[in-house]
Amino acid sequence: MAGSSFGHLFRITTFGESHGGAVGVVVDGATPNLDLCEADIQVQLDRRKPGQSSVTTPRTEPDTVQIRSGVFNGKTTGTPILLLLFNTDARPSAYDPIKDIYRPGHADFTYLQKYGIRDWHGSGRASGRETAGRVAAGAIAAKLLARRGVSITAYTWRAGGVQCKTVDYDQIEKNPMRACDPLAAVEMVRKIEEAKAAGDSIGGVIECRVKGLPAGLGEPVFDKLDAELAHAILSIGATKGIEFGTGFAAADLLGSQHNDPMGPQGFLTNHAGGILGGISTGAELVFRTVVKPTSSISRPQETIDTHGNPRTITIQGRHDPCICPRIVPVVEAMTALVLEDHFKRQAALLA
Amino acid sequence: MAGSSFGHLFRITTFGESHGGAVGVVVDGATPNLDLCEADIQVQLDRRKPGQSSVTTPRTEPDTVQIRSGVFNGKTTGTPILLLLFNTDARPSAYDPIKDIYRPGHADFTYLQKYGIRDWHGSGRASGRETAGRVAAGAIAAKLLARRGVSITAYTWRAGGVQCKTVDYDQIEKNPMRACDPLAAVEMVRKIEEAKAAGDSIGGVIECRVKGLPAGLGEPVFDKLDAELAHAILSIGATKGIEFGTGFAAADLLGSQHNDPMGPQGFLTNHAGGILGGISTGAELVFRTVVKPTSSISRPQETIDTHGNPRTITIQGRHDPCICPRIVPVVEAMTALVLEDHFKRQAALLA
Amino acid sequence: MAGSSFGHLFRITTFGESHGGAVGVVVDGATPNLDLCEADIQVQLDRRKPGQSSVTTPRTEPDTVQIRSGVFNGKTTGTPILLLLFNTDARPSAYDPIKDIYRPGHADFTYLQKYGIRDWHGSGRASGRETAGRVAAGAIAAKLLARRGVSITAYTWRAGGVQCKTVDYDQIEKNPMRACDPLAAVEMVRKIEEAKAAGDSIGGVIECRVKGLPAGLGEPVFDKLDAELAHAILSIGATKGIEFGTGFAAADLLGSQHNDPMGPQGFLTNHAGGILGGISTGAELVFRTVVKPTSSISRPQETIDTHGNPRTITIQGRHDPCICPRIVPVVEAMTALVLEDHFKRQAALLA
Amino acid sequence: MAGSSFGHLFRITTFGESHGGAVGVVVDGATPNLDLCEADIQVQLDRRKPGQSSVTTPRTEPDTVQIRSGVFNGKTTGTPILLLLFNTDARPSAYDPIKDIYRPGHADFTYLQKYGIRDWHGSGRASGRETAGRVAAGAIAAKLLARRGVSITAYTWRAGGVQCKTVDYDQIEKNPMRACDPLAAVEMVRKIEEAKAAGDSIGGVIECRVKGLPAGLGEPVFDKLDAELAHAILSIGATKGIEFGTGFAAADLLGSQHNDPMGPQGFLTNHAGGILGGISTGAELVFRTVVKPTSSISRPQETIDTHGNPRTITIQGRHDPCICPRIVPVVEAMTALVLEDHFKRQAALLA
Repeated sequence: MAGSSFGHLFRITTFGESHGGAVGVVVDGATPNLDLCEADIQVQLDRRKPGQSSVTTPRTEPDTVQIRSGVFNGKTTGTPILLLLFNTDARPSAYDPIKDIYRPGHADFTYLQKYGIRDWHGSGRASGRETAGRVAAGAIAAKLLARRGVSITAYTWRAGGVQCKTVDYDQIEKNPMRACDPLAAVEMVRKIEEAKAAGDSIGGVIECRVKGLPAGLGEPVFDKLDAELAHAILSIGATKGIEFGTGFAAADLLGSQHNDPMGPQGFLTNHAGGILGGISTGAELVFRTVVKPTSSISRPQETIDTHGNPRTITIQGRHDPCICPRIVPVVEAMTALVLEDHFKRQAALLA
Repeated sequence: MAGSSFGHLFRITTFGESHGGAVGVVVDGATPNLDLCEADIQVQLDRRKPGQSSVTTPRTEPDTVQIRSGVFNGKTTGTPILLLLFNTDARPSAYDPIKDIYRPGHADFTYLQKYGIRDWHGSGRASGRETAGRVAAGAIAAKLLARRGVSITAYTWRAGGVQCKTVDYDQIEKNPMRACDPLAAVEMVRKIEEAKAAGDSIGGVIECRVKGLPAGLGEPVFDKLDAELAHAILSIGATKGIEFGTGFAAADLLGSQHNDPMGPQGFLTNHAGGILGGISTGAELVFRTVVKPTSSISRPQETIDTHGNPRTITIQGRHDPCICPRIVPVVEAMTALVLEDHFKRQAALLA
Repeated sequence: MAGSSFGHLFRITTFGESHGGAVGVVVDGATPNLDLCEADIQVQLDRRKPGQSSVTTPRTEPDTVQIRSGVFNGKTTGTPILLLLFNTDARPSAYDPIKDIYRPGHADFTYLQKYGIRDWHGSGRASGRETAGRVAAGAIAAKLLARRGVSITAYTWRAGGVQCKTVDYDQIEKNPMRACDPLAAVEMVRKIEEAKAAGDSIGGVIECRVKGLPAGLGEPVFDKLDAELAHAILSIGATKGIEFGTGFAAADLLGSQHNDPMGPQGFLTNHAGGILGGISTGAELVFRTVVKPTSSISRPQETIDTHGNPRTITIQGRHDPCICPRIVPVVEAMTALVLEDHFKRQAALLA
Repeated sequence: MAGSSFGHLFRITTFGESHGGAVGVVVDGATPNLDLCEADIQVQLDRRKPGQSSVTTPRTEPDTVQIRSGVFNGKTTGTPILLLLFNTDARPSAYDPIKDIYRPGHADFTYLQKYGIRDWHGSGRASGRETAGRVAAGAIAAKLLARRGVSITAYTWRAGGVQCKTVDYDQIEKNPMRACDPLAAVEMVRKIEEAKAAGDSIGGVIECRVKGLPAGLGEPVFDKLDAELAHAILSIGATKGIEFGTGFAAADLLGSQHNDPMGPQGFLTNHAGGILGGISTGAELVFRTVVKPTSSISRPQETIDTHGNPRTITIQGRHDPCICPRIVPVVEAMTALVLEDHFKRQAALLA
């Protein structure tokens, strides 16, 4: 209710601030008797952590996860799992000079308006660091989904105006953009370096595809699968939109073009992106989310301070000139959380 | 949990099928002592009801609402409000010929896969008729929001490839498209009539703007205001995507272009669409949703029946060649439900 | 959240006031493909309805239930089921003389303090009439439980100081007290008639037993089976306490007396009442709840009006001198709702 | 949903096992800008911790709490607060001999039935150690309540058959029983020592009183204040019942005896225990809960092992011969959590 929990039956609660003591998550409702060790989770955290390449922030957080409850002799017990990551490279004092200035594009202003108090060390709770807990929890969900035959793959689809032309899953982890097209990735990196040199940042689009999903998941009328995925993905800090299947392009199509005909082997096309009436069709689930250019830029920007005085701000520090490659595992994690939750909801419905 | 409830503190539960006995909603959590009569609700239902113009279905449902609980001597009592609409023009037998055929673009297949049973009278629970309950509940939320100085306006922004060039709120209710540009509306209607003549349908984009919203609404990190609006809007049957502010176009911008600078009078631009870090900024809230072309078309389509045999289907009956004008009040209603809920959540946080 | 919904996966929302237009319930999450007709529900409502005997109120409400959604061709579809009962013997004007007086033992004062407005026709939302919705929904839950081999039996165990000495399930529906001991029932009725003649009322204790419950239901640590049953039972208006198994008598026992030893066939005793650590043991579930004497009595009582002036009140009208026999089906219904919900939660956990 | 969270607007999620790495809690929804430091919480944890006297277990856990998120410069920020306690005196191997034997009165059997796996180090998740998280969270709730003028006091009211005759709040923390009557406390301790010498344990009754509660809290019809308190209190491991005000004794009263008359100064008696219709009356809130005798006793007991073979068990180890004094702060904490949540719910209703 207060906003730091997500999911119903596979439910997570994250905690922690950018430069506070720790970040992490409590996972409640994971199926018991699942083999689980820290390495299962670490592998996903390593994809999200800072300092991976020239296009990500140089902050060095190992993001080493500790399982502190809910696992016994290498198996989940069905009780809450605490996944804890201590902050090791926090530099709160680095933010002293801008503690009373609202950074454009950041949540500084809105947090202060909402809560009447703001943790100005980094972005506090609004930091992307919070997503470490999501990725950690998502790794457990993904393990459960793998047993169900479900696999989730996200990748950078567009960045700095460069769009992928091929989709090659094998290339994703081989380029710093996590793009599905290695040639496009080279272009994207060049755009980022240009922007970075100019003290600027770029945005992009991430696409996510899910294979192996059976028909029947989703809870009409309000908890439609697409509605819940939209909730999940838009809860990631930098996203500004989501579309399923043909998405916004459907606005200009005719019904006879957009409707997916069926044959004995199933759907013949997939404009719907794998969801009809809010329920999975059994076809591939496909959606895209837009990621805004990183708000932290070093170019001077016009803003005000907490007293309402005009100020010019130049943000120093360790930031990602394009956050897409690090959001890819977060998109996968949020997708995994929604899907695992809906498998459980469907089991409950039919029980 | 089972999917027919929405909201937390201002919470609604809808019920009813297209050709069943009744549709409606229970509203729990409405502030007590609000003046409320059936006319307050009817005015919104009349905007959603079928049979309004040549671009909507000719089904004639008066959609007369009855308040059956929760209101005493013309005022809300704080207890659940039952809003009931009996179906009067149901023609279930009209669907006998296609009861075992999956209509392309419809939820026929997915409902049967999920539930193992399907109400094949119309679209059953998957019918757009269910949104009558949402609009009825939204009228109460909108009344509470009006007291807070908040007003919500949605309109057709694009349809059949025609985009509005002006935004004139006074024109919206004066054209059958509920478009914000009367000239564009004329073009849209022509596109619809063309499609209709060809047994086809068209899609569009609806834009929604909210004025008077204070800064501070939204519950990080998972129940961000945009995340909850995305949930709400994507739970409407025909929508396939949502974007806030600059939306998908942000993918190609630089941070220095997308960040909204601030001055002593507030934000100088509004690329963010009125939300930063998941919390309202106090600027105008702006989002767009894409509406797919209506699935029910009379052109022959390739599909299968419930036994897996190939079939050709030609859907007769009363359908909307473009659902945009009737979805406009649904988008407003869902927006009102989210906002009223978040006002209450914010009051609770600070209490 | 606003209080008129109960359950998570098998979830109900009740609505309606004593002398308003209708009472009823929306059931969301019922397993699809269950045979269901109005008679299945009516049989339970008939046990709760007024006017059954000399020990219940003479108000004549047939409480005829209508299924208005969620059932198709005699089967549940998995979508929300609206169960509607129109009030037919409402006499709101009968309450005019006491509309501004707080009846002792009633919720008149507290509702006005909470909501700032009060429906003073009868007890409004605080009326026992609201439980009709619970009983209707409980009938569906009980049908699902019957398929699982679970049966729930409640009965008056004590009333007017008279306690049952035998437990004979066959006798329960054969006496107006729904007592498990016919001889005790005769005594109880005599006590009630004495009290009634004196313009007074009596209280009692209801015991509930559940057979066929498997081990493993209940969700530690907060949603223990006993915690959820306590929530359910204490949400019935007239109850003031609950105890499981040996209950309050456990306070004076030694651990060696209270612990239930086990043998190869299971538990050798059942002081725990069928729950250990908040999870069902597979032994019979046993609890008791205390029902306060009906608040509406015709003896003169000292009270105040809404202006704070002292008043003497003599309540006329149609009231139950002992509510136990009519609460018996409500206790069974609430128990069924909790158990069915927990079967679904357990299915979800293991899914 | 999975059972380790409690509350709606002031919501807690506990985690941890008796002999695992850590126990603790995440608190989401605490009002921002509250002064909060570890000492505020430690003072309550010290009342719950083991090793306080001869009547409690000799396990020596300092239960030192660490605040790891949600507090900035000594104030709550409105974001989740992680309260962490590392286990320091865990002795998991002490349980090796009984790892496959079901201890009578424990949750060993039911946990294994439910989850298919059991952490047999101590009682795992079923351990009373889990309540440390509750007490920690309750300390924050109590601080917020104190600002509202609300104070909660629980005490041992009966133990080993000895009942308090006086209620002196000043005595509660001065005797090892946390009894409200120092003379009764001496008797109780003697009973415990007798039981302990015989390898046995005793039970008792805890009474809780709340002063300063305004009228108007509680959410009919399902989340009545008494229903939610019952849920909260019955979720504490060792409790087997709860009663409000006159409680079970109301069964034998007449309406004219049980109804609380009102005068211009308020209620003249308080048989209702401060709640009518599920809403606080403004009078003192009074309830009692029964605590079963501790299940861990060293006398030989008849039981079975996980293979169904008969076994005799003699439990060694560090246990509380009477858990009442350590449950007193847990009862207060759970009460505080419910009340703070309902203050927020009421604020939301009227917002």
